[in-house]
Amino acid sequence: MKPNSKLTLIGFVVLALAFAPKVVRAADPLSSWNDGKAKQSIVAFVEKVTKEGSPDFVPAPERIATFDNDGTLWAEQPMYFQLLFALDRVKALAPQHPEWKDKEPFASLLKGDVKGALAGGEKAIAEIVMVTHAGMTTEEFERIVKDWIATAKHPTTGKLYTEMVYQPMLELLAYLRANGFKTFIVSGGGVEFMRPWTEKVYGIPPEQIIGSSIQTKFEMRDGKPVLVRLPNLNFIDDKEGKPVGIQTNIGRRPIAAFGNSDGDLQMLQWTAAGAGPRFMLLIHHTDAEREWAYDRTSHVGRLDKALDEAAARGWTVVDMKKDWKVIFPFGGK
Amino acid sequence: MKPNSKLTLIGFVVLALAFAPKVVRAADPLSSWNDGKAKQSIVAFVEKVTKEGSPDFVPAPERIATFDNDGTLWAEQPMYFQLLFALDRVKALAPQHPEWKDKEPFASLLKGDVKGALAGGEKAIAEIVMVTHAGMTTEEFERIVKDWIATAKHPTTGKLYTEMVYQPMLELLAYLRANGFKTFIVSGGGVEFMRPWTEKVYGIPPEQIIGSSIQTKFEMRDGKPVLVRLPNLNFIDDKEGKPVGIQTNIGRRPIAAFGNSDGDLQMLQWTAAGAGPRFMLLIHHTDAEREWAYDRTSHVGRLDKALDEAAARGWTVVDMKKDWKVIFPFGGK
Repeated sequence: MKPNSKLTLIGFVVLALAFAPKVVRAADPLSSWNDGKAKQSIVAFVEKVTKEGSPDFVPAPERIATFDNDGTLWAEQPMYFQLLFALDRVKALAPQHPEWKDKEPFASLLKGDVKGALAGGEKAIAEIVMVTHAGMTTEEFERIVKDWIATAKHPTTGKLYTEMVYQPMLELLAYLRANGFKTFIVSGGGVEFMRPWTEKVYGIPPEQIIGSSIQTKFEMRDGKPVLVRLPNLNFIDDKEGKPVGIQTNIGRRPIAAFGNSDGDLQMLQWTAAGAGPRFMLLIHHTDAEREWAYDRTSHVGRLDKALDEAAARGWTVVDMKKDWKVIFPFGGK
Repeated sequence: MKPNSKLTLIGFVVLALAFAPKVVRAADPLSSWNDGKAKQSIVAFVEKVTKEGSPDFVPAPERIATFDNDGTLWAEQPMYFQLLFALDRVKALAPQHPEWKDKEPFASLLKGDVKGALAGGEKAIAEIVMVTHAGMTTEEFERIVKDWIATAKHPTTGKLYTEMVYQPMLELLAYLRANGFKTFIVSGGGVEFMRPWTEKVYGIPPEQIIGSSIQTKFEMRDGKPVLVRLPNLNFIDDKEGKPVGIQTNIGRRPIAAFGNSDGDLQMLQWTAAGAGPRFMLLIHHTDAEREWAYDRTSHVGRLDKALDEAAARGWTVVDMKKDWKVIFPFGGK
């Protein structure tokens, strides 16, 4: 290219920019949402509470929005991802535990019989969770979760778990924050299982993550303070526990709450019972093709009573199949 | 005044403003601090961690600063203010409890014998705390605290309790926030006793208050969800409990921690043990004239082991008498 033609090209670009249309249309912050009742109800609520001088105006510090995680921000099938993490950890730890070969639920699990291992019900699950989640320091557990989440793949999609988040919900989180909301996770999952990756994936910092927990104990090891994770439950952040967790950690009532199962019902009831404008939303898993379809009889993320209450009280229900243009950032499963 | 002279006056003001010196000296954000080692160490730390490109730079989301409350942000003599609240509540509730006339610790208390009432030690205090802090909903308790804090007066100064906050610490909180820090309270006091007033007084929102707590229970009353405060301890946010409370609620380690007693030692140790630049500060109550002087043998806010460790490890120790120009916004006591 000769200097002259280069100059001409630059001149052309400058001219083109100078005459480009000045009015650029604002990009739709909820572009993965189809234009239906669900999307409209979200936008109407946000516009209402952020309009200064309106009777529905809510000052920014009180714009607290709480989100369930499993089935609301990321998928939860064929079972909770934290349980898949625990199963992977059992396999990784097995060489240090030769006794597991003859001991349920570990014996079945190590033979690849997940169903057999989980046949022991809540007791079996609790045992698996405790051996994989306790007995190390908080820093060691954080490292274990970080390593797993960076590499482990979902059993049916083959995707990283952090890719199995809902694109429309990522947009909703960002939209709310752009409108002065403070977004929190209030999940039945373990709080320390979420914190290592939620800031990067959802833009929600560790101090805005509320979840279930086991006890920890402060102690000195070689003159260095550590927090050791103990095999005792501390708090179950599910059902009646969600409003308790919200009050303990946030200390004020959300004005908007988002869930997908009966485990979120009390959080939505608690949110709805406050004064002033309120917004309650349930995600209904209706898309067997792009995600999964389940509700009233599902073992994971059962949505039954909460679906009835949403209908009776006029809460927003998202029909994933109809309301969402895409499910995951990579599309459907 | 004639129109003319009015115009002349306006003209003069306009001229005066126009010729006013353009370079205004930035006000000192820590103007109540004398220029000594304590103030210098604070400023040096803040400048270091906020200087982009420097090896000590800390990104804003990680600038977590935790503050004890009693004796660090507000006074704690002649006894913890929350205990004075509980004593006031016993008096207010006495008409509904005729049986208290013959039952310790209430009998002594109602006769005005506080010393006698507290002679029963921790058990007596726990009884007083539970009857005054439990048995109502969270909303009812919030209202009780708000009413008390708005009207109750300190027994020796006659000031509102919210006036008995340390002016230099209010400046420090604001200075840290202006430099991108997120400020938290981590107190042995009750979390729901602090939240109703800490946002207004310290600029710290409810979700950044960590404290001791009793259990709460979600239930429906006349179709309305409430959280009922139960007479059972949930968490003691003191000593070894402070790092536990920090991890549970914040989920990341502070880079700066501020306390005044042995109850804060583990919080400072936990803060000090992180990687990168760290700042630990203890307030030493040395001013019997303007506030109170106490340390190694005090029943309230004992400062003994932590004072030794601060000396050994080079943590900043504030000498209230020497380092603070004023103690309270209204001056000294």
